[in-house]
Amino acid sequence: MKATPVKGTADYLPRQTLLRDYLQGVILDTYRAAGFERILTPAIEDMENLEKSEGGDNLNLMFKIMKRGDKLDAALAAGDYKNLADLGLRYDLTLPLSRFYAGNRQKLGSPFKCIQIDKAYRAERPQKGRMREFVQCDIDILGSDSPLCELELIHTTAAALLKLEIGSFTVKVNDRRVLKGVLRGAGVPEEMMDTVCVSLDKWDKIGSDGVLAELSEKQLSPESCEKIGALLSGGCTLEQAEALCGEPEAMARLKGILADANALAEGRYDVVFDLLLIRGQGYYTGTVFEIQSNQYRGSIAGGGRYDGLIGKFTGENVPAVGFSIGFERIFQILESQGFAIPGKRRRAAVLCGEDEGIDAIRCAERLRRQGIDAGVYQRPKKLGKFLGKLEEQGFDGFLILGESEEPKWFTKE
Amino acid sequence: MKATPVKGTADYLPRQTLLRDYLQGVILDTYRAAGFERILTPAIEDMENLEKSEGGDNLNLMFKIMKRGDKLDAALAAGDYKNLADLGLRYDLTLPLSRFYAGNRQKLGSPFKCIQIDKAYRAERPQKGRMREFVQCDIDILGSDSPLCELELIHTTAAALLKLEIGSFTVKVNDRRVLKGVLRGAGVPEEMMDTVCVSLDKWDKIGSDGVLAELSEKQLSPESCEKIGALLSGGCTLEQAEALCGEPEAMARLKGILADANALAEGRYDVVFDLLLIRGQGYYTGTVFEIQSNQYRGSIAGGGRYDGLIGKFTGENVPAVGFSIGFERIFQILESQGFAIPGKRRRAAVLCGEDEGIDAIRCAERLRRQGIDAGVYQRPKKLGKFLGKLEEQGFDGFLILGESEEPKWFTKE
Repeated sequence: MKATPVKGTADYLPRQTLLRDYLQGVILDTYRAAGFERILTPAIEDMENLEKSEGGDNLNLMFKIMKRGDKLDAALAAGDYKNLADLGLRYDLTLPLSRFYAGNRQKLGSPFKCIQIDKAYRAERPQKGRMREFVQCDIDILGSDSPLCELELIHTTAAALLKLEIGSFTVKVNDRRVLKGVLRGAGVPEEMMDTVCVSLDKWDKIGSDGVLAELSEKQLSPESCEKIGALLSGGCTLEQAEALCGEPEAMARLKGILADANALAEGRYDVVFDLLLIRGQGYYTGTVFEIQSNQYRGSIAGGGRYDGLIGKFTGENVPAVGFSIGFERIFQILESQGFAIPGKRRRAAVLCGEDEGIDAIRCAERLRRQGIDAGVYQRPKKLGKFLGKLEEQGFDGFLILGESEEPKWFTKE
Repeated sequence: MKATPVKGTADYLPRQTLLRDYLQGVILDTYRAAGFERILTPAIEDMENLEKSEGGDNLNLMFKIMKRGDKLDAALAAGDYKNLADLGLRYDLTLPLSRFYAGNRQKLGSPFKCIQIDKAYRAERPQKGRMREFVQCDIDILGSDSPLCELELIHTTAAALLKLEIGSFTVKVNDRRVLKGVLRGAGVPEEMMDTVCVSLDKWDKIGSDGVLAELSEKQLSPESCEKIGALLSGGCTLEQAEALCGEPEAMARLKGILADANALAEGRYDVVFDLLLIRGQGYYTGTVFEIQSNQYRGSIAGGGRYDGLIGKFTGENVPAVGFSIGFERIFQILESQGFAIPGKRRRAAVLCGEDEGIDAIRCAERLRRQGIDAGVYQRPKKLGKFLGKLEEQGFDGFLILGESEEPKWFTKE
């Protein structure tokens, strides 16, 4: 039998699990303190729902669960190979949330401020930092289109990151309507919007020249290419965008969010406009945001407004906006730094003879009441070797039953 | 699109999630205080490992994940319908633990005292109380055959249940070797052991007469039926079992565990011998245990010694014993009682105008520092209705920005 976990997934050792639990605890506590409420949904969803969910490329990365019994036999006998699966593992937490809200709307507040900290699954090509099973930490506000929502999401997500001491970071904000307005202003025809965005999204990797080469290859007019080129070379300030953008309402909203979020940041992080912040998901309709570490590559949080998705379940429009912390990236960064968990309890082993179980467990109970984690171990023949191993395993000390009342600590406080 | 969760799974509302998080927190804290260490393993496992795992009937209840891309096409083209799945959702946490231990043995203590609190999946026929996605809370001790392990597992699991105030309960203990010794003493031939156990396991449901009818139908000799009948009618005391059982070592071990566990219980729960405690899993080799509520039907925890399973990965024998709390049953019982979470923080809404976001969030921050969960809401047109809804949603109070500094609470302290 194979001892390694499934490709793209991971086992976590005790010290790694302690860190993961600590980090998720800090995030959850921060979110709850900000008045958000946690919900739980299953990791498996109906195949039909998943397929209708506008998940873009994520739909191609789905883990599908086979039908069982007669239904599987029937599909195989009919050669109906497209319908062998009736369930799938969720690829994010947004579709489950939309389904949850549609089914429980009457029992929830309006607006409903929601926390989800849970696993999602994508059959991505395994590569460094890309997991096939991964944890997301999401907050969403459903049922309000006020820019207060964006402000609260940015402030609360940033508050969690500040508490985790992840290092300095920058919040990037854009608005899909502003982006489209700017492109329209630059003469991009409606039918080319999506393909132009795909090229712009590569700016990080291929640079301005690369983007412009792609755009002219895609037959964008030389005048439009020139205008976009000017934007790219100047880094595209808010003022440049405004000059081209014919969406005064979206523009004013975006400027308000940027100004207020920066005021609340009080210099602890920057909140900046980034016209090139695209974010792939098809369901975003307005504000999009992303947080990038100033030290480590890749984004550590992302989200946006998706006013259409919930209506697919409820039939009526429900405005919605969410921000998701990419937990695996945070964990990788802090683990690689050797992050020390604050306030960790000390752990001691109580060593005893095989017939001293009652006294040993009572002794351990006494230590627990003193705030020490304590377990019972049979006294081994080779004591020195055993104690060495205990220390290696992260124990802080030991107590030999009958020899002393208090633990001996491996290192002085 | 369908708004209900997949059959046999559940969505949890905020107040239910709060209870689930609280209960899991108490269990985890109790286990960690007893010196156990948590690990995490993925929910998906290789199909081959799952199929070789002696999971008994659970193997028929597996959710199988389809191969993807070329591998799926190849299996379909070859008509190889038995090999369409390469992965499966785990049906318990014992197989993943065995795999984990085999892969990480050098990095773990010996004995290794392990916590797992996580989800498992079984495609059971949906019925009340049976979930297809469910949480188990397991502690296991790997690498020691000392009865100290059984003692510590019983004491620690019971300690968690006592903290949860689940009501009075009884710990039932048996030993598979004692059971087989007794049956051998009653003249049951080796080849009939398993089938006789299957009948005995039904005693709860079909009673002594039903069991005896089944046994004689299975052609067990009248003498053996008579001896088993005498055991069943007397409730089978430890003394009766001892008189028939030819396994003095296993018998002495079992008696020691019962006496010591009862001494540690100090009357808070009973630890009793139950010859009819069978527990289905094929992998148990010695002690088996189960905890039953004295008030509610069904078991709330179960486990036993499985000295053979890990050897399937490592090639060498590693003694192991585990105890698992059936979290869903605990949650159902406490939720139905309207369990009130101790020490819950108060939650207040800060109401403000759309352009007062900065001041409102600063005000909420001030409340958070006072230990109050506080979120920001746009002041609605119909204030009374909104406040009524807040109270219904479990908010404890509200503050209107600019009108007061401290929240108004809905109910007096």
